[in-house]
Amino acid sequence: MFKGDMERKRKVAIQKVWNAIEEHGGKTILSTGITGDDARVAKAVIESGVKMLEPNHPAVALAKGYKGVDNMHDAEHIRHEVELSEMAKVVSGVRGVIGEEPFITVGIPGGFTEEKPVPISQEDFYNMSLAGTDGLHTHKCDIDDLEEIVKAAHHYGLLVDAYIAHPEDKHPFGLPASTAEEVAATAKKMENIGVDMIGLMTGMSYGGVAAGEIPEVIRERLEALVSSVSVPTLAEGGINTENYQAFQNTGVHILVVGTSIDQMVQKSAQDAVKQFLS
Amino acid sequence: MFKGDMERKRKVAIQKVWNAIEEHGGKTILSTGITGDDARVAKAVIESGVKMLEPNHPAVALAKGYKGVDNMHDAEHIRHEVELSEMAKVVSGVRGVIGEEPFITVGIPGGFTEEKPVPISQEDFYNMSLAGTDGLHTHKCDIDDLEEIVKAAHHYGLLVDAYIAHPEDKHPFGLPASTAEEVAATAKKMENIGVDMIGLMTGMSYGGVAAGEIPEVIRERLEALVSSVSVPTLAEGGINTENYQAFQNTGVHILVVGTSIDQMVQKSAQDAVKQFLS
Repeated sequence: MFKGDMERKRKVAIQKVWNAIEEHGGKTILSTGITGDDARVAKAVIESGVKMLEPNHPAVALAKGYKGVDNMHDAEHIRHEVELSEMAKVVSGVRGVIGEEPFITVGIPGGFTEEKPVPISQEDFYNMSLAGTDGLHTHKCDIDDLEEIVKAAHHYGLLVDAYIAHPEDKHPFGLPASTAEEVAATAKKMENIGVDMIGLMTGMSYGGVAAGEIPEVIRERLEALVSSVSVPTLAEGGINTENYQAFQNTGVHILVVGTSIDQMVQKSAQDAVKQFLS
Repeated sequence: MFKGDMERKRKVAIQKVWNAIEEHGGKTILSTGITGDDARVAKAVIESGVKMLEPNHPAVALAKGYKGVDNMHDAEHIRHEVELSEMAKVVSGVRGVIGEEPFITVGIPGGFTEEKPVPISQEDFYNMSLAGTDGLHTHKCDIDDLEEIVKAAHHYGLLVDAYIAHPEDKHPFGLPASTAEEVAATAKKMENIGVDMIGLMTGMSYGGVAAGEIPEVIRERLEALVSSVSVPTLAEGGINTENYQAFQNTGVHILVVGTSIDQMVQKSAQDAVKQFLS
């Protein structure tokens, strides 16, 4: 692989991210769920100002009704069966309608914490990069696994966004850190191994909290993350229209939003058909 | 193929249709677009009372950003390249999350009026039926082509819904009939060759008309259709929340609604991300 070309590709990609953050006043969103994998909806949200999309394999499993699974928690157990070629098709399809400017990071089998032996081959990194993604959205909980991904991803010109989680979270979606101090130390380690964007799992994945607020412990952990690294930072899990302001006040750069938008989209479809059936 | 089994399968399917019509007071909708092919949204609308879904290949081409196409008119020219196996996956995925009760009719390459030589093999009918569809949604404009489809579809236990169009419509989506009298005569011919549900193209595909009204000529054509056959009748093209009451007043049993719902869904996604970006 041509090293210079791939370094240049990564520079273009990280510039897309900083541009998105700057354009939206220091904080933006990474739009996922149906907005990340359905080209019709992806194009619609890009037209409304979204600059960052995340197609991912559990959402694609839900879109395709894979094995009859109809919720994100259950999708966690079958997501590794979505084929890499399917994810490449999703990326190239979405890219084809939104153009080159928006940033795309993609979740693929092997890139999350896996319950079964799920590798990612060099050819897989190559194919995903060729399909048109700027980055890989990962959820490893072991730093050696993450480092292995970062090296291969960088080799093929891809950025990596990776996450920190609490060891007691329902899903193992990031490197474990029990305290705010551990969050800061873990974030620095991740930055040192070359992770391009570092996120914090809120522990509220696929659900929200009370209106307008976020738990104090989450606020402290996010502030520890933001103050410890110089790369773009993210928050993921349970972010909705009620609490997103509280998240943004922590200084985090990017809010990952999926379930909340999916629920609004599903409700709008329901409201639509109810009108026609009335 | 076991003839008795397949006759029974068709009887179950047509009963689903009549049940849907009865349950909604003599008129129901066939929900298509994103509600027909995305399992997340399909399940949502089924939970809101929809009883009939139509996944189809041009909508799937749009969902997948196929060849960069982002609107239904353009999708008409590339829809035949969507693979049959892809449509079978869509049907089985949607069926897997909505259960056996709702009626599914599927649009597949070869089943619409084709600009290129696109056959449907016996194995294709078999595979689509096995995937879990109740019927085939067709748009042939030649009665011999339609009869060929009806025979094979029935052999594999599938119903066929087919359409009548005006010869001057933008897209050739049905058997041509210039006048209301020709609509009635064509509908009778279609019923005679075994078409299970007969629809009228409004000539407004992928667009609507003025609020609350439908053109007088469409009203006359629909009433000619409804009064000439005993099978369930449909209207398709440009039906929206502004004009659906006028359509229902013609006595037509089933309104095919796609673009209108897709637009509402896209707008809700846009409204959602605008909130997060504000």
